[in-house]
Amino acid sequence: MERVAIIGASMTQFGQREGEWIQNLLAEAGIECLEDAGVAVDDVEHLYVSNMASGEFEGQTGVPNALAHDLDAMPAYTQRVDQTSSSGGAGIYAAWQSVASGASDMTLLVGGEKMTHKTTGEATDVIASLTHPAEYKHGVTLPSFAGLTARHYLERFDAPRESLGKVAVKNHENGVDNPHAQFQKEVDLETILESPIVADPLRLYDFCPITDGSAALMLCPESVAEEYADEYAVISGIDGATDTHVVHEREDPTVMGGVVESGRGAYEMSDTEPEDIDVAELHDMFTILEFLQMEGLGFAEQGEAWQLVEEGYTERDGELPINTSGGLKSKGHPLGASGVAQGVEIYEQLVGEAGPRQVDADVGLCCNVGGFGNCVITTIMEAAQ
Amino acid sequence: MERVAIIGASMTQFGQREGEWIQNLLAEAGIECLEDAGVAVDDVEHLYVSNMASGEFEGQTGVPNALAHDLDAMPAYTQRVDQTSSSGGAGIYAAWQSVASGASDMTLLVGGEKMTHKTTGEATDVIASLTHPAEYKHGVTLPSFAGLTARHYLERFDAPRESLGKVAVKNHENGVDNPHAQFQKEVDLETILESPIVADPLRLYDFCPITDGSAALMLCPESVAEEYADEYAVISGIDGATDTHVVHEREDPTVMGGVVESGRGAYEMSDTEPEDIDVAELHDMFTILEFLQMEGLGFAEQGEAWQLVEEGYTERDGELPINTSGGLKSKGHPLGASGVAQGVEIYEQLVGEAGPRQVDADVGLCCNVGGFGNCVITTIMEAAQ
Repeated sequence: MERVAIIGASMTQFGQREGEWIQNLLAEAGIECLEDAGVAVDDVEHLYVSNMASGEFEGQTGVPNALAHDLDAMPAYTQRVDQTSSSGGAGIYAAWQSVASGASDMTLLVGGEKMTHKTTGEATDVIASLTHPAEYKHGVTLPSFAGLTARHYLERFDAPRESLGKVAVKNHENGVDNPHAQFQKEVDLETILESPIVADPLRLYDFCPITDGSAALMLCPESVAEEYADEYAVISGIDGATDTHVVHEREDPTVMGGVVESGRGAYEMSDTEPEDIDVAELHDMFTILEFLQMEGLGFAEQGEAWQLVEEGYTERDGELPINTSGGLKSKGHPLGASGVAQGVEIYEQLVGEAGPRQVDADVGLCCNVGGFGNCVITTIMEAAQ
Repeated sequence: MERVAIIGASMTQFGQREGEWIQNLLAEAGIECLEDAGVAVDDVEHLYVSNMASGEFEGQTGVPNALAHDLDAMPAYTQRVDQTSSSGGAGIYAAWQSVASGASDMTLLVGGEKMTHKTTGEATDVIASLTHPAEYKHGVTLPSFAGLTARHYLERFDAPRESLGKVAVKNHENGVDNPHAQFQKEVDLETILESPIVADPLRLYDFCPITDGSAALMLCPESVAEEYADEYAVISGIDGATDTHVVHEREDPTVMGGVVESGRGAYEMSDTEPEDIDVAELHDMFTILEFLQMEGLGFAEQGEAWQLVEEGYTERDGELPINTSGGLKSKGHPLGASGVAQGVEIYEQLVGEAGPRQVDADVGLCCNVGGFGNCVITTIMEAAQ
């Protein structure tokens, strides 16, 4: 079967986008991606929109149809992909399927979310609706799961609290060089460790912010890609997997089953191993999740990811740079956009367009986590020319 | 490329399902479909949920993860497919792509919606959010588009008002024999023509009801289907297409561009023509839409569908039976379920499981309309053994 290529990428400014709304943000990234790929809109056959909750956040549904209209992409087929906070990764998988199945020879994927016009409480209510009602009604929201898991991890593996903070320090350092990031500023360890407690032992700076923004990717068969670009990326492996929706039913709270299973599938499909990965974007919605994904994906043994972070192994000049984009922590986390933006960063690293964030990479990986690992999509990309 | 087969189908009772909620309804159809197909849940690789608005209707998102959990389908990959009122048809397309791309060898699609616990006004507000804000803010909702279009059609093509009523009479007659239909009762033409005006010239009985319910289909490669079933159906053609999201920008209000384009794609892919279709499920959310789809799909010339209805051509014993299930009009319209339920009816007709509704059919078609034709998915299935 022919491989699926990525030939263009874009992302809007992430952050507080006052005066904008979801329809604008999607169009902004979509137009820029068409330009970046050099593709005429009439050649787009399928158009996917990764978005979790435009209805809940803005009272507008049908946003894929609105986007097709705004881009003048009719009669391109369009659909919304929702997989909660991993809607973007699910969008990459849907777009991959549309091309790999032969249904489309040119698929534009745009992910976006508009959130900051809501109060933090209102936004948290929408996000919490993705957890199981049996847990939600007891107040066990995603941040509280993160706190419980972090405490368990630190005690069980004798890891210092500082190691979690160093994830945030690193990702903020990377974000300084990302002009689209919500926070383009460094944060020192002391500030993190003295920030207000949210879910003990995690503090404010262990959490990603609430964000507006949009990101896009253009996918096509490799034979078509060659007509458009000298350098492009291919998706060599992709898979998605669920874990229990009731989080407390999991046997080991430090093992994210969806990460392990989707990673296994993506490695197998691409015929790669963890050692082959040169750069990775992980879903650092909470600092503890970066440890769990590093371990679930085989970058570290169970209970040892914190040591690699302490050693600088995952810094931009380290052995395996993780979250060169700044991650969700610094770049921001507009739900439906985040997984797409992970793909944008890996694509740009592979084709040498990452500017001051550039690392030496032929193979990259993104891991996009829905809920607290309730569904996870792992994508492996390789440079091609 | 190997064809994609359907080897099982189910639908719950449609109607007012008091005491149920979306998660239950999805599980009910999912379990029944696994049984109907004779597939063990561990063999399900992808699980798609067609649902427009569980967040808006019930404050619960992440329902695909909840369903994977309830069916014990982990680590099957799962995702929500939303294409407004055509979410079900979009789900068939997504499930088809998952199998045709080689990503999954066994895909369960479940579509559902829980709506009747809301007042009609509240439900209408959610549905209206799928139209373009530029039109919605002027009060031009879907029923008003239907009224405007119906008036234009009747005057321009010199069609009698009664012909629209006869669509409802026919579909109610068919629904009597569908044990899952919301209304299993006949309605006579006089009752329809004297029912309250909703959007002149359309009256209450020209509109489908608000409904709770769920429906499911099991898809796999044809080589796998042969292991499970002696008789099955294959999806021989499928395509989706958009039209303008701002409805008043369309050149001819009686031509549904999305129907025409998606139908063209599906006919081409399956190497069939309108004359080859033996049975069809059309999206009769409003009676006028059945005329427009008949014409857009080539079953009638423009402005002549009403004559075929008058002649009995589309009745169960006619040349081309349309909406043998009862259609949305009598069966009900739980948004995310409706397109899947169309597929269930065509599958059952092709494998000879339609009971008292059975017609003689080797090739069937479903047309699922999102919004007022803003996006349309057309699927052609054929009997196989």
